[in-house]
Amino acid sequence: MPKQRSTHTRQLILDKATDLASLEGLEGVSIGRLADALGMSKSGVIGHFASKQDLQLATVEAARERFESEVLDAIEGEPGIERLRAMTERWIQYIEGEHFSGGCFFWAASAEFDGRPGAVRDRLAELTALWLDAIGAEARLAQRLGEIDDGEDPAQLAFELHAYVQEANWSYQLLERADSFTRARRAVESRIARVSI
Amino acid sequence: MPKQRSTHTRQLILDKATDLASLEGLEGVSIGRLADALGMSKSGVIGHFASKQDLQLATVEAARERFESEVLDAIEGEPGIERLRAMTERWIQYIEGEHFSGGCFFWAASAEFDGRPGAVRDRLAELTALWLDAIGAEARLAQRLGEIDDGEDPAQLAFELHAYVQEANWSYQLLERADSFTRARRAVESRIARVSI
Repeated sequence: MPKQRSTHTRQLILDKATDLASLEGLEGVSIGRLADALGMSKSGVIGHFASKQDLQLATVEAARERFESEVLDAIEGEPGIERLRAMTERWIQYIEGEHFSGGCFFWAASAEFDGRPGAVRDRLAELTALWLDAIGAEARLAQRLGEIDDGEDPAQLAFELHAYVQEANWSYQLLERADSFTRARRAVESRIARVSI
Repeated sequence: MPKQRSTHTRQLILDKATDLASLEGLEGVSIGRLADALGMSKSGVIGHFASKQDLQLATVEAARERFESEVLDAIEGEPGIERLRAMTERWIQYIEGEHFSGGCFFWAASAEFDGRPGAVRDRLAELTALWLDAIGAEARLAQRLGEIDDGEDPAQLAFELHAYVQEANWSYQLLERADSFTRARRAVESRIARVSI
């Protein structure tokens, strides 16, 4: 297979894998399941991955790339509190936009893998901690810029803002409550307004 | 098998099933996996359940019973804001106490089943909504008792309090951060203090 076509096929497989994983879990993403979903032969899928763990790790990286291009690269605004607001808003929009059939890929994979030691769990912990800590770092910057009260703990603020968005994902996906994202936005806005100087 | 012994064995199986499900997911709880974990024969396990879905539903009910006896029945304090604080604190203690090897059973099962339509998903949604709404009802009562500001939306308050505890479970289970429960308590306390009259 020409290299370019192979790369394209691999990407197609991984796009489907991230989507299936958000619905049915990473463990449910098997070679056979992917082949069925893509109308490919099993051997057409299997050639792209050395093992089940290799497929799972590649799926996590594909989800990371989507998060980077759809969320991180799309965050606008001045560094500090404006950017802190933009980070949470862009994240909410991303989950709300249902880029994955089963909601936030990382939330679903976190719950699935937190009790399964290994490379997949380690990578999920590393990536989700990066995002939580990026929110904390932006809050800290806002504080240094004099936009947030000195008495506020930026990591505590990040914990709470991050909690609202994960809660919205849970409430929307499981309870199917239409007000989930409105509630998250209201919580974020009032929490930030409270610490703003 | 005498009825009493059979009931006891069924309960043993379900205790193990809830624990395994918190670690590896409800879908991973198979008759074979349970038989291995309990040192029983497959036929010794299979007789207690009509189907895989029957086993999963029974596991959800076993988790509900544990939640009821360990959390609901242990909540003390006067109705209103005192009881609202006690509800969240008791819930945090329950998760912190690691009654399940993989953290909160309902959180793990929510993420796993939110994209799988059927009786298990429906029951998980029903039970978790009951708890979220019980927190909202207690906040509403506190408001009627004049303990919480009239301008506050009790359902919004419940969304945020519930979010802090789920976030702590996520942060402790996946990121292994030792301050997870301290952060949840701090968030709950400052949120309630802010609306108290």
